[in-house]
Amino acid sequence: MKYFQTSLTLSDGRQLLYFDRDPGRVPQPDTRGLLASTHRGEIRYDALVGEWVTVAGHRQDRTFLPQADSCPLCPSSDSNHTEIPDSSYEVVIFDNRFPSLTPPNTSFTAPSTDFLMTSDNAGHCEVVCFTDNHDATFADLPRSRVELVIQAWKDRTAKLSTKDYVDYVFVFENFGTDIGVTISHPHGQIYAYPFIPSRAKRHLDQVADYRARTGRHLIDDLVGRETSEGTRIVDRGEHWVAFVPFAARWPFQVQLHPLAPVRDFTELDDSQASELADIYPRLLRRFRGLFDEQVPYIAAWNQAPRGASREHGRLFLDLFTTRRDTNKLKYLAGSESAMGAFVNDVSPEKAADMLRGSLSVVPDTFTP
Amino acid sequence: MKYFQTSLTLSDGRQLLYFDRDPGRVPQPDTRGLLASTHRGEIRYDALVGEWVTVAGHRQDRTFLPQADSCPLCPSSDSNHTEIPDSSYEVVIFDNRFPSLTPPNTSFTAPSTDFLMTSDNAGHCEVVCFTDNHDATFADLPRSRVELVIQAWKDRTAKLSTKDYVDYVFVFENFGTDIGVTISHPHGQIYAYPFIPSRAKRHLDQVADYRARTGRHLIDDLVGRETSEGTRIVDRGEHWVAFVPFAARWPFQVQLHPLAPVRDFTELDDSQASELADIYPRLLRRFRGLFDEQVPYIAAWNQAPRGASREHGRLFLDLFTTRRDTNKLKYLAGSESAMGAFVNDVSPEKAADMLRGSLSVVPDTFTP
Repeated sequence: MKYFQTSLTLSDGRQLLYFDRDPGRVPQPDTRGLLASTHRGEIRYDALVGEWVTVAGHRQDRTFLPQADSCPLCPSSDSNHTEIPDSSYEVVIFDNRFPSLTPPNTSFTAPSTDFLMTSDNAGHCEVVCFTDNHDATFADLPRSRVELVIQAWKDRTAKLSTKDYVDYVFVFENFGTDIGVTISHPHGQIYAYPFIPSRAKRHLDQVADYRARTGRHLIDDLVGRETSEGTRIVDRGEHWVAFVPFAARWPFQVQLHPLAPVRDFTELDDSQASELADIYPRLLRRFRGLFDEQVPYIAAWNQAPRGASREHGRLFLDLFTTRRDTNKLKYLAGSESAMGAFVNDVSPEKAADMLRGSLSVVPDTFTP
Repeated sequence: MKYFQTSLTLSDGRQLLYFDRDPGRVPQPDTRGLLASTHRGEIRYDALVGEWVTVAGHRQDRTFLPQADSCPLCPSSDSNHTEIPDSSYEVVIFDNRFPSLTPPNTSFTAPSTDFLMTSDNAGHCEVVCFTDNHDATFADLPRSRVELVIQAWKDRTAKLSTKDYVDYVFVFENFGTDIGVTISHPHGQIYAYPFIPSRAKRHLDQVADYRARTGRHLIDDLVGRETSEGTRIVDRGEHWVAFVPFAARWPFQVQLHPLAPVRDFTELDDSQASELADIYPRLLRRFRGLFDEQVPYIAAWNQAPRGASREHGRLFLDLFTTRRDTNKLKYLAGSESAMGAFVNDVSPEKAADMLRGSLSVVPDTFTP
């Protein structure tokens, strides 16, 4: 799919990128005169469990549930000078104004795992606006727009992966105020971490261990088994299969895997990307069909990291809602939060059955 | 501390234990005629990350925010036949009516880590009632009651650790509706897992790795460094020290460690238990002093597991709230939930400073 990218430097020095299907974007200047932020977060190593924590004290006062007429992700108007200094856009990606991770000032020093040694953080936090329509949702985007978003994810994954201080590029969307989303305009995020995040690290270790034992890739065998067993399959196409994982930790959770091995967005070919633009929003509509329009979700794209464990990584989506029933949230209390032992009150087979049938209760497609 | 234990079998076969400071408890029969539950959960191995998930579909309809006059944890009255068939009690521990883990029916078979192989679960889920006063909180319990609770924790840790299907005894309290607590009567829980939970496992691996490299115990060195550096110390006594961990993943998080090595509650001596009865509720009051009476918290007691890695385990408390500010919750969104990469918006040094000073805004002690 052909698209055009136009870059702009915002008034405080942050980068903004327009992604358009048609040429001719003339970037308008950002006239807000924002001061460049001097705040920098830290990363700290938790030796007790061997994982990294980002400490970003300056984010405590970030934008919190703004009114629609002051949304910072809408196109700019005379009365609302937003992050996007133009009157319309298709897809826009820009540096988060309140980032927890920022590029290093000078050369990058690998973070310290010594006791109580603070390291400068490094990385990128980007905001991905899917549409200039404040009231749209990803689930309802036109197909061509979803394709453009996928191209933008590909582009950013490629660019961020060239940075020597980036170990892992994480593409995700948090949706819904129930999940703590502070701005309702449809948007996702990209975090480029200077470490491999804890859960991804454990996954890559499992893949390496499985390969050492069997000579095969864990994901190939697991997807093969789920596909042939079939009881938890929610959707499938020529290039993708979606299922509720056998050991789902959330009551309603789906993984979407490409059928041919793909390490990250940059390796998606046109036919894979094209089918993804159908099947992914349809999964989001399945989730909405379970409960209501406002069902919160986290859509997390796992990718291969940079570095030695890159060979073990694969692109797949981990999608889950924090609801366990119409008006009930699944809370992460002691067993989950403190011990990492999830208790799931809905059987994965029942969840798959509900997700297969949930499209019938809402229009399958409509154009916003 | 001397105490008396009296056991009772509830009408559906579950066990209930009274813990009293004075002798003479005559257990009253449970006249409710409850049917024994035939539901059993499963445990499933998530091969992708190497962790266990408990699937307990039958819990979806468990008791949800009952009114005070139908609280199942209050003493029984003529109009409310509760889980405790007596008109008063001090501390009571009984099998959860909606358990996610239950003792095996026959002999125990170790759970399977094969792909998509379901295993019967095994274990115990117990409810610990701290007082018969529905409106009390742990933070305000009289000192002698806290001592009795600690004795009850010791007793249950010892008893549950003798079961061949139990790998880890987890003592915890979830407090506050914000955190998903469905019954407001002051109570905690004990989960006896048939596996070592994921986060505990990672911790034990870190301890083993550190010992192999240095010949020393990770916790000894970490507590030693925190104590000598001092900037994150919140409270300390003769036998215990409490600090905000250097790499705190929650905005307000405290670890409480014994200064002499203790593997689990059963190894606490009288002087350690006695001081704990002061310093622990005082930590809870420090949390309340940050915000308000209803500040939610998770109090998670890490202990040594059964089995080969028992030598690496230590008793310590991990205490945190899900608040990040007066009216703001810290949500676990994409970075935390899907990647395990926490972003903490409050610096641990600032949090420690606030927690040191927070007792001044509420009465330091009072008797309910």
